[in-house]
Amino acid sequence: MNFLMPTEVVMGRRCIIDNASIFARYGKRAMLVTGAKSAKLNGSQEDVIAALKSQGMEYIVFDKIMANPTIDIVYEGAVLARENAIQLIIGIGGGSPMDAAKVIALLAAQDISRENLFGGKYEDKILPMIMVPTTAGSGSEVTKYAILTNDVAQTKISIATPLVFPNVAMLDASYTETLTMKTTVNTAIDALSHSIEGMLSKRANAISDLLAAESIKIIAECFKELESGQVSIVSRERLLYASALGGMVISQTGTVAVHAMGYSLTYFKNVDHGQANGLLMGEFLNYINEFEPDMISKILSFMNMNTIDEFKHKMATLLERIEKITEEEIEQYSKTVMKTGHIKNCIVTLDYEGVKRIYEKSV
Amino acid sequence: MNFLMPTEVVMGRRCIIDNASIFARYGKRAMLVTGAKSAKLNGSQEDVIAALKSQGMEYIVFDKIMANPTIDIVYEGAVLARENAIQLIIGIGGGSPMDAAKVIALLAAQDISRENLFGGKYEDKILPMIMVPTTAGSGSEVTKYAILTNDVAQTKISIATPLVFPNVAMLDASYTETLTMKTTVNTAIDALSHSIEGMLSKRANAISDLLAAESIKIIAECFKELESGQVSIVSRERLLYASALGGMVISQTGTVAVHAMGYSLTYFKNVDHGQANGLLMGEFLNYINEFEPDMISKILSFMNMNTIDEFKHKMATLLERIEKITEEEIEQYSKTVMKTGHIKNCIVTLDYEGVKRIYEKSV
Repeated sequence: MNFLMPTEVVMGRRCIIDNASIFARYGKRAMLVTGAKSAKLNGSQEDVIAALKSQGMEYIVFDKIMANPTIDIVYEGAVLARENAIQLIIGIGGGSPMDAAKVIALLAAQDISRENLFGGKYEDKILPMIMVPTTAGSGSEVTKYAILTNDVAQTKISIATPLVFPNVAMLDASYTETLTMKTTVNTAIDALSHSIEGMLSKRANAISDLLAAESIKIIAECFKELESGQVSIVSRERLLYASALGGMVISQTGTVAVHAMGYSLTYFKNVDHGQANGLLMGEFLNYINEFEPDMISKILSFMNMNTIDEFKHKMATLLERIEKITEEEIEQYSKTVMKTGHIKNCIVTLDYEGVKRIYEKSV
Repeated sequence: MNFLMPTEVVMGRRCIIDNASIFARYGKRAMLVTGAKSAKLNGSQEDVIAALKSQGMEYIVFDKIMANPTIDIVYEGAVLARENAIQLIIGIGGGSPMDAAKVIALLAAQDISRENLFGGKYEDKILPMIMVPTTAGSGSEVTKYAILTNDVAQTKISIATPLVFPNVAMLDASYTETLTMKTTVNTAIDALSHSIEGMLSKRANAISDLLAAESIKIIAECFKELESGQVSIVSRERLLYASALGGMVISQTGTVAVHAMGYSLTYFKNVDHGQANGLLMGEFLNYINEFEPDMISKILSFMNMNTIDEFKHKMATLLERIEKITEEEIEQYSKTVMKTGHIKNCIVTLDYEGVKRIYEKSV
């Protein structure tokens, strides 16, 4: 067993304002890394700036992070951080801004060429990072991953190193209240996929399974509210917590085939990441069930479900359908998936025909 | 909620030999901090030395740590570490050597006077630490605490700082096979008390409760083997894991009255730490039960028990009795206890009469 999760987690309403001194631990000059809009609408940017001001800190805002961030944008952010002698990177937003913030923190502290960016060999240097998630999905605030869009590989691709574990994650669910229901649901299903895939990883261990089980239970308890279109702040807090648990899980286990398969749908068809995972998960569970039925029963039991069909039905109720994809596209995506480490990371090794079949039956 | 547990946990048979490269991360020159005998008998010292040699590292052995280590011994160790330009401290043993190793790592990296040793104000400097627990009890391998005997305060006293979180904990249950049954039982009950007290702390949170519940369940599942005098290696692995979970719990929550009360029994009567906690726990639960019956029922349910009497009976079966203590002694101990932070840390605030009554009914 191996377990590592060095990020300090601070959670609660107003936790940023109430823990402003945490920012001052890391220096005088901070850079906020975020998207163009949502951090301004949901109050998170304002709270972070108020906290920084209360500590007499200076800051700049880099708010150019798009969904599925590119390699160009993180290099641009790193140049800005260096020019301004930034000492602390603060990522605010969903997985995209947080992941971009991690890579900016890395590139601001050491020179890495584009060719070597995904190579995994880095010096032991990175700027301190504080993450403020404003969706309850990616879990990036507590992971050792940063996922960017790689146009050479034509898919999303991970930087995976303990270096990018944030120093602190500050979780205030009130920032998720302005999300659309669609994003609330999709991100919750993303978190669910982290915990389910984590349990089906070869690297699962006692602690990751404990966290995954708790996370799956909590998210399933929220299905009803997610369906109803009305999610209370209490449930939002539970979802944000479950999402962080999911992040802790995949930092130990990695994800498996569902994530690899979803990346192609996101890259080529612009399907939302959580939606893609949710729609692929049912058929993936069917595949695994042929070899590891006890494991699948256990996972279903955490959601109070008896059959995979019940799970598939729930996903179909919660998530929008994906437009039909052609047999040619499926073959192309399946080939990409077969090249990933995700395939080997699963307790059941999927073959090419199996991956194709999951795509075919899912969309 | 606040959660921090930055220690990397590596667990499994032969994990030290199989992960020898972890030692080399931290430099060339290591100091082993351990007791006189047990690390030599149980194979842990030999394995650590083999791992260091395989990495071409140099080492010295400081094997003078006694049970309930004194302030003198940690200053002596720190001088030795400085004289030998040590870069890595390796604590091997139960709570005593691991706690001493933490303070030696601190004192080797910065000058702290004896007066300020327990003051909590330290510079941000400490030597890297790797811990190898050889009992399944203290959880020190994953805590931010180091507990020494303080003759001025006439009790055991904690250094509490995130600085002393070890970098790595390496858990191989085979080293616990040479323990006497008495120590096996007492240390298991110590771990149990960490998780139970953690759940009754004001600082308990969702994650600490999740870890505590799991730890309590595992230890209770081992009661039968602990009673029988035959503990399998599988159960020893479960106990070592549960003990680490208990350590993670108290790093978030601290301990409450039972630990404070037990310290006096250990200091004045030389009662084993785990034994003291176990024998005081039942009456402590009775006290809390008057105010928080649901909480106590929940904790009992994790052990498949219905009543506190059932719990007391189990402790009486597992643990040796303590010699009678006088009313005067009880008054003295109770006054010491009332001065500790442990009292205020409990979800129910104990008063002096309550503490006295717990002592009176327990011994």
